[in-house]
Amino acid sequence: MNSAGKLNVLVWNEGVHEALNDPAHIGRIYPDGIHGAIAAGLREALPDADISTATLQTNNDYGLSEEALAGTDVLLWWGHKAHAEVSDHVVDRVQRHVLGGMGLIVLHSGHFAKIFTRLLGTTCSLAWRNEGEQELIWTVKPSHPIADGVESPIVIPEQEMYGELFDIPDPDDLIFISSFAGGEVFRSGVTFTRGKGRIFYFSPGDQEYPVYHHPQIRRVIANAVGWAAQPDVTRAAPEVRNQPRTRYEDRSGSEQLRASTPVTHEVALR
Amino acid sequence: MNSAGKLNVLVWNEGVHEALNDPAHIGRIYPDGIHGAIAAGLREALPDADISTATLQTNNDYGLSEEALAGTDVLLWWGHKAHAEVSDHVVDRVQRHVLGGMGLIVLHSGHFAKIFTRLLGTTCSLAWRNEGEQELIWTVKPSHPIADGVESPIVIPEQEMYGELFDIPDPDDLIFISSFAGGEVFRSGVTFTRGKGRIFYFSPGDQEYPVYHHPQIRRVIANAVGWAAQPDVTRAAPEVRNQPRTRYEDRSGSEQLRASTPVTHEVALR
Amino acid sequence: MNSAGKLNVLVWNEGVHEALNDPAHIGRIYPDGIHGAIAAGLREALPDADISTATLQTNNDYGLSEEALAGTDVLLWWGHKAHAEVSDHVVDRVQRHVLGGMGLIVLHSGHFAKIFTRLLGTTCSLAWRNEGEQELIWTVKPSHPIADGVESPIVIPEQEMYGELFDIPDPDDLIFISSFAGGEVFRSGVTFTRGKGRIFYFSPGDQEYPVYHHPQIRRVIANAVGWAAQPDVTRAAPEVRNQPRTRYEDRSGSEQLRASTPVTHEVALR
Amino acid sequence: MNSAGKLNVLVWNEGVHEALNDPAHIGRIYPDGIHGAIAAGLREALPDADISTATLQTNNDYGLSEEALAGTDVLLWWGHKAHAEVSDHVVDRVQRHVLGGMGLIVLHSGHFAKIFTRLLGTTCSLAWRNEGEQELIWTVKPSHPIADGVESPIVIPEQEMYGELFDIPDPDDLIFISSFAGGEVFRSGVTFTRGKGRIFYFSPGDQEYPVYHHPQIRRVIANAVGWAAQPDVTRAAPEVRNQPRTRYEDRSGSEQLRASTPVTHEVALR
Repeated sequence: MNSAGKLNVLVWNEGVHEALNDPAHIGRIYPDGIHGAIAAGLREALPDADISTATLQTNNDYGLSEEALAGTDVLLWWGHKAHAEVSDHVVDRVQRHVLGGMGLIVLHSGHFAKIFTRLLGTTCSLAWRNEGEQELIWTVKPSHPIADGVESPIVIPEQEMYGELFDIPDPDDLIFISSFAGGEVFRSGVTFTRGKGRIFYFSPGDQEYPVYHHPQIRRVIANAVGWAAQPDVTRAAPEVRNQPRTRYEDRSGSEQLRASTPVTHEVALR
Repeated sequence: MNSAGKLNVLVWNEGVHEALNDPAHIGRIYPDGIHGAIAAGLREALPDADISTATLQTNNDYGLSEEALAGTDVLLWWGHKAHAEVSDHVVDRVQRHVLGGMGLIVLHSGHFAKIFTRLLGTTCSLAWRNEGEQELIWTVKPSHPIADGVESPIVIPEQEMYGELFDIPDPDDLIFISSFAGGEVFRSGVTFTRGKGRIFYFSPGDQEYPVYHHPQIRRVIANAVGWAAQPDVTRAAPEVRNQPRTRYEDRSGSEQLRASTPVTHEVALR
Repeated sequence: MNSAGKLNVLVWNEGVHEALNDPAHIGRIYPDGIHGAIAAGLREALPDADISTATLQTNNDYGLSEEALAGTDVLLWWGHKAHAEVSDHVVDRVQRHVLGGMGLIVLHSGHFAKIFTRLLGTTCSLAWRNEGEQELIWTVKPSHPIADGVESPIVIPEQEMYGELFDIPDPDDLIFISSFAGGEVFRSGVTFTRGKGRIFYFSPGDQEYPVYHHPQIRRVIANAVGWAAQPDVTRAAPEVRNQPRTRYEDRSGSEQLRASTPVTHEVALR
Repeated sequence: MNSAGKLNVLVWNEGVHEALNDPAHIGRIYPDGIHGAIAAGLREALPDADISTATLQTNNDYGLSEEALAGTDVLLWWGHKAHAEVSDHVVDRVQRHVLGGMGLIVLHSGHFAKIFTRLLGTTCSLAWRNEGEQELIWTVKPSHPIADGVESPIVIPEQEMYGELFDIPDPDDLIFISSFAGGEVFRSGVTFTRGKGRIFYFSPGDQEYPVYHHPQIRRVIANAVGWAAQPDVTRAAPEVRNQPRTRYEDRSGSEQLRASTPVTHEVALR
């Protein structure tokens, strides 16, 4: 949360499809870039939040400097062609902030982003086919905050197919399963926890289809931002510690004692 | 949520220990009953919520009538000696409301309440010993909303021991693990989802010890109320349905169409 | 395991569709009943196991007497029209044996069997449509023993559709997800643990389609029997116990001491 | 499984404490090294398996060559002082084999091994204290194969304390929780799945205490080897694939067709 008490959300997109005008119609469906469309949806849904964007072209480590991350409650990540261009030390930094409590929302082809495979430990491989077929997104955990007010199924008329086997660890929560006209299925909305950070992966969205303008997709992403944000958490990474033998005492009656006793052993990140 | 836009929380306690003055000092540590102490903690932590209480002596199915449950966002449950006196048709009703989206927080000896074993399907057995020994409550999932701002460990100077094997299904989230001076351990804070309802079981608290006055225990319970409440959810039980073959169409561009199309197949409970 | 060291598997089917000759072609696709086809598949896959069958017509509580269950390592359950005719005290007994360690495999319309909703605590509702459409069964957890050697997808040319929302608790493991020609998806292969018992629900199979003759479906069911069986486990239900304060001592060096010290607190069921 | 049909198990230990004679009594409690004691326990429990050992001093990438891993069904890992000396390309290789289906059992201070943090994505930090205090290991999932026949609690008279917060992702299964004389708790036996590989972390064991001679600890480790081994699995990493639109057909009646149709899209590792 920033000094004005607003939630800080950063929408990161490599921005390469836009720069290359590839596909040719990308400028028509995403005149402000994929990040621009996502940010517009968030500004509408979360008028009290501060939504900013950055790309590989942004100064200071593509907008992912230590200071920028320290000021970010939730980071959204879109990448596809340029995963390898994100330098490892920036990925290290993003990972540290996620473990310390920054929310992370990884979208579509971001399944192969370094930060995602790094946090999950698997290949994150999948099957895909780009023929603009219909995707249906079914809610299977309606009690989850990310499913709040979401239609089931969400219907996306034309989409790239992502299919199983999706090589990820068992998620904490499986919220959405998609089917495609060709018969494939995909765990399209899944959560993970790593350290203190909450992570959501959501597969819909592509450079060829105007998916991020779909009101229901925008709803899911806005819900996910609300769920992943922990503005009050101490942004700090857990660290190993040598814990002396302690006579644990109830300090609930002694505010003074409690105030002087460190209860966490962490390295502050902001 | 009630008409004034307030969260409605109902603290239910069988109230038998208090009525029997058993143990003799219960009136001293819980002059307003166990429910009274829990309610006082919630009123302090959640000043905008409407907190009420009921016991086995309350009129209209011990305060658990259809109307009362329909108006309740989160139900807290404390019972010990009189589980069998809660009639099955009231348990049926509570179960329906939980499946329909009412939050449920089961405390301490409520592990043997009919509503808890009914929702979990296991015996919910455990080991116990009442010698007033120290309990330490360790946070193991700090990213969970219920752990927000909670010290680790919480120190309870004198408590009844609850130990493994706790015969419950694998929880959705394991948030707290307790150790006792005698060496036993217990999964003391666990969540479950049943239907659309969010359930939290929290073991600390007993008729002999003033645990519900402990500021950190109050914090956990208040956090749990916030997490379990879904005031905007349609309180309705899922029901089986014969789904005709449908040409699923994207209705996102047609608000009128969407408004007239039912998206759920449920039996409304309120 | 029986005295000959063989695994004991009991295939239970209400047997009502067969008795009523409903549908008319059931005698053609299942000349030995649905249970007969399942048993035949198991006999082929597990030649060393002892496979028996029972129905609602079988003597002694439909073949589910205390003695029969005590001798059963894994129980398979198929029911549809007659769930209500299974008496509650028999369901109590089956539940006790599952909690004590008997494996349970619930098939297709058994999702509404009393034993299943009892163990899960939810409605187990779903969407359905009977138009004989193609089902594809995709493996999403290939490391699970139940997925061993199973093709992905399994193709079933004609099937009843079962669709989400399937109102079950989060499973321990999600192994299979199905899609249907009409676009619906279903968590078609899921595991649960209740007490010491391992439970697998598998949705394919119906009285109208010869699904239990499909080699891949037979493979899944045989794998599940192998996974759910715990022939060496002490069949006993956990029970509450008052645990005296104990000076826990390492008994590993003293075989005599260990042999005389009970390590479990359970009620033996066989 | 090797050509003789035996399970191949490789016990890897950095071997640095032994080489440095640090602590001075290590030669007395582990005359054949930590790996030697673990291997001896496995040879006794699994007489039909082929158990070998390797250390940082072993030729060909410390015994972790491509060929060695291809021939290994389950790899056990013990490390403490020399995690950094394991080269990244060997860690890459081990990770590939785990994702492809090799079992991995990480012991004690191996929580900081590169291969473990790589697969889990978190810091794997914890609290520790080395004062030789009693550890009690409680079973909380008795239905799991790794808990088969294991006493609860296992009593270890003298141990290093490992305490929460243990910074790991939510495990697939939580099997054991430890308490220590000082009051701390630890999730001491946890499973994970990554790719097709099954992973078990078990915290007991240290260079200062003869824990790997304890019969119950040996039982747990032998159980874990049995659980993690998948000798028949195709050792292959999942890979991304462009899946053409397919008319999925039931091939169950045509063995010839099935034999010629690839059902996996993987890169073979052995």
